[in-house]
Amino acid sequence: MAKFDMQLDVLFTALGDPTRRAILSRLARGPASVSELAAPHDMALPSLMGHLKKLEEAGLISSHKDGRVRICTLNPAAFAPAQDWLSEQRAIWTTRLDQLDDYVTQLMQETRK
Amino acid sequence: MAKFDMQLDVLFTALGDPTRRAILSRLARGPASVSELAAPHDMALPSLMGHLKKLEEAGLISSHKDGRVRICTLNPAAFAPAQDWLSEQRAIWTTRLDQLDDYVTQLMQETRK
Repeated sequence: MAKFDMQLDVLFTALGDPTRRAILSRLARGPASVSELAAPHDMALPSLMGHLKKLEEAGLISSHKDGRVRICTLNPAAFAPAQDWLSEQRAIWTTRLDQLDDYVTQLMQETRK
Repeated sequence: MAKFDMQLDVLFTALGDPTRRAILSRLARGPASVSELAAPHDMALPSLMGHLKKLEEAGLISSHKDGRVRICTLNPAAFAPAQDWLSEQRAIWTTRLDQLDDYVTQLMQETRK
């Protein structure tokens, strides 16, 4: 499987969970500690850490230790392959719909002759 | 869990697989029969049908019987929640970066005084 394909697998799968999306939305507002990220979620810490690990593996977040506190930061650039893939699909079907539109217009003009 | 959240879960999870993305890319070019969709994939038919089922559950494709042939069609509108969610995140971090930029500019101006 191509590297780009594997990257998209990991990325879309990471986005397919409400806790992980909530963490990303929080981090879009600025870096946060693990306990700040855990606060809104009724979840055991190991489960939350599991979600953070998946986001880190997808490259969507990075983390560093600041004394005894682990701080997480969003990596906005990591969303790009997902956005690019969705835009590509839109371009393909828009082109197809334009071609269909041209064809129908041409057909109508020929019928009028 | 909110309905919108569940919809995003199903949608992003459906996109997190290379076979399913290849099927969507093919259908963006126009409707296709199940056997046309299966042709490029080295996969047993039940596995392929499983992928089609997941795409149908996510609302990304629909299918109908044309005689003995099942035809699948893309539903481009179903991509919208994923695109909207990604755009929202971008808007949040762009606003934050603009605010940081304003703050730094202001700080530099004050230092120069």
